[in-house]
Amino acid sequence: MNARSPLAAYHDLLERPLLAILATTMSDGSPQATPLWFDYDGEFIRVNAAAGRVKDRNMRREPRVALVILDDTTPYRYVQIRGRVVKIIEGDAAREHIDHLSQRYTGQNWNPVKPDDVRVMYFIRPESISGLG
Amino acid sequence: MNARSPLAAYHDLLERPLLAILATTMSDGSPQATPLWFDYDGEFIRVNAAAGRVKDRNMRREPRVALVILDDTTPYRYVQIRGRVVKIIEGDAAREHIDHLSQRYTGQNWNPVKPDDVRVMYFIRPESISGLG
Repeated sequence: MNARSPLAAYHDLLERPLLAILATTMSDGSPQATPLWFDYDGEFIRVNAAAGRVKDRNMRREPRVALVILDDTTPYRYVQIRGRVVKIIEGDAAREHIDHLSQRYTGQNWNPVKPDDVRVMYFIRPESISGLG
Repeated sequence: MNARSPLAAYHDLLERPLLAILATTMSDGSPQATPLWFDYDGEFIRVNAAAGRVKDRNMRREPRVALVILDDTTPYRYVQIRGRVVKIIEGDAAREHIDHLSQRYTGQNWNPVKPDDVRVMYFIRPESISGLG
């Protein structure tokens, strides 16, 4: 990551296991927002959902999304990111990603309520970044 | 509030001075998300912005919005609300509302960076409520 990158000032918020709030668009055009796990590979913000869930359907229909990550240690510090889902994958890689997220957030292997759910992994390319604090 | 209300289980999150993440819709149809102060009068979730800001323009154009409020004391507990801006006011009542929010969140009077900003107050009617935890 280039030190001049707009993400640089908020890079710590992408590295820490904080919940992101993801905004997507419903089929009727209204916004939807939900907290979820994420990680950042230096290029993409990566999130994971069960196939068929609202946010899965929304991101397949409308790839433009927004994210907010609040700093849990500094009041009113946060980053806002608008971006686009540029890649969606299922299969082993998506399953490995939810295991990785579970380790990142809980220190334990993923223990799904519904083990038969098909996991889906989304790669979000940040396009507009701003923040406060 | 009726005890059978879907909001009842998460009423404490509306009463406490937590940041809400508000999702609105940009003029190009993409989602936008931003943290902000709010309060709840038992019927409407009320937020406040400076006239002309992105979220002001977005809510005037598209009244459908979504909110997430994370519990800062119980991990993974949160409420998601989809709703509609049903009233927008300016003038003294909007100014008094930002003073009230400032007291609620900081214990101090509102001390604006731009005192000449016109304040706007939005009344959001909750239409769909869900949560976790």
